[in-house]
Amino acid sequence: MPRGKFIVIEGLEGAGKSSAMACVKNFLTEHAIPHRQVREPGGTPMAEAIRALVKQPWMETVTAETELLLMYASRAQLVANVIEPSLAQGEWVIGDRHDLSSRAYQGGGRGIADEKLASLRQLVLGEFQPDLTLLLDIEPQRGLARAQARGDLDRIEQEELAFFKRTRQRYLSIAATDPTIQVIDANQDMAAVHRDLLQQLQRFMAQELN
Amino acid sequence: MPRGKFIVIEGLEGAGKSSAMACVKNFLTEHAIPHRQVREPGGTPMAEAIRALVKQPWMETVTAETELLLMYASRAQLVANVIEPSLAQGEWVIGDRHDLSSRAYQGGGRGIADEKLASLRQLVLGEFQPDLTLLLDIEPQRGLARAQARGDLDRIEQEELAFFKRTRQRYLSIAATDPTIQVIDANQDMAAVHRDLLQQLQRFMAQELN
Repeated sequence: MPRGKFIVIEGLEGAGKSSAMACVKNFLTEHAIPHRQVREPGGTPMAEAIRALVKQPWMETVTAETELLLMYASRAQLVANVIEPSLAQGEWVIGDRHDLSSRAYQGGGRGIADEKLASLRQLVLGEFQPDLTLLLDIEPQRGLARAQARGDLDRIEQEELAFFKRTRQRYLSIAATDPTIQVIDANQDMAAVHRDLLQQLQRFMAQELN
Repeated sequence: MPRGKFIVIEGLEGAGKSSAMACVKNFLTEHAIPHRQVREPGGTPMAEAIRALVKQPWMETVTAETELLLMYASRAQLVANVIEPSLAQGEWVIGDRHDLSSRAYQGGGRGIADEKLASLRQLVLGEFQPDLTLLLDIEPQRGLARAQARGDLDRIEQEELAFFKRTRQRYLSIAATDPTIQVIDANQDMAAVHRDLLQQLQRFMAQELN
């Protein structure tokens, strides 16, 4: 049984990640590829408890380092207990966010230095990384308007616009240097976004089958 | 107002840390030095919530990295929101465990490489460190017997004896290279331990007043 592939959906709040997850799931189902979905932070009982700590409001300042460490604690549990065992069994994994979110939000948004992020990534993940990341790129104003229309925003989603602009820039600058990250224009209507997603998935499959 | 001092009590389970905390507290009260006590993991509402996650049993494997990251997440909150502001106001802080516990337990006990611990410490603490650490050194068998007599052991306290032997060795080897760490023989009876603690505190005060 060949090792499964790890496909990650990334992007700002309101970029359309849930819809993209469903699109990838349908694609894999149609190709009869066994798969499972996970989300970050979260995805195991302990990681979900960590997610709750990160998302809820606190009466104390939550330092950028605390937030970053909790994200990686959740990620360590998910990779060790779910993602790695699934891939080893030949199952594909579709992730709603992964390490790139920490690099974009805590690095670009919060301003934690890249070498600090790199040493933490090395500690927790070693050489582990997604096979394909689909980055839904959206104008922050547009994404936030969509997220607001959906309901309450969590602690991180309540950040100012400048935070999301920095996060988006970091997403794009990392994508420009990493051939496993494909940028999808999520400012388009949903049909066009899905068409682009499917095109990327087909290209990935063709690559993997060769 | 001169900056306060940060004094930490360290040692294995059952080494007598609570009694030593009370001893340091009495000493500072007698010297009319304003002070507060903190514990790790924990010490702020968010850090206490993280402590609960670390201590409780889980139906999944808790990776060594997850445990380490949660310890540092708790520490980041405590240092930023309690310890640093207290010291800046001239208050002394007595800590029940601090960074040395991670180096001994997660480094020595769990076997996480020292350079990984050092990079995490640098990320979270920078140059911050205690002014004095009093390490209560005890034979692991003796300490565990005392802790067991006290009641239920938490997830970490349920480790095998070899884990605590490795942890003790790491405590002692770090202490041998760091002049701010004083080793107290906690195998002695309580009166002798307190006598040694007071001697170290007096020596520290004399040093600080010069």
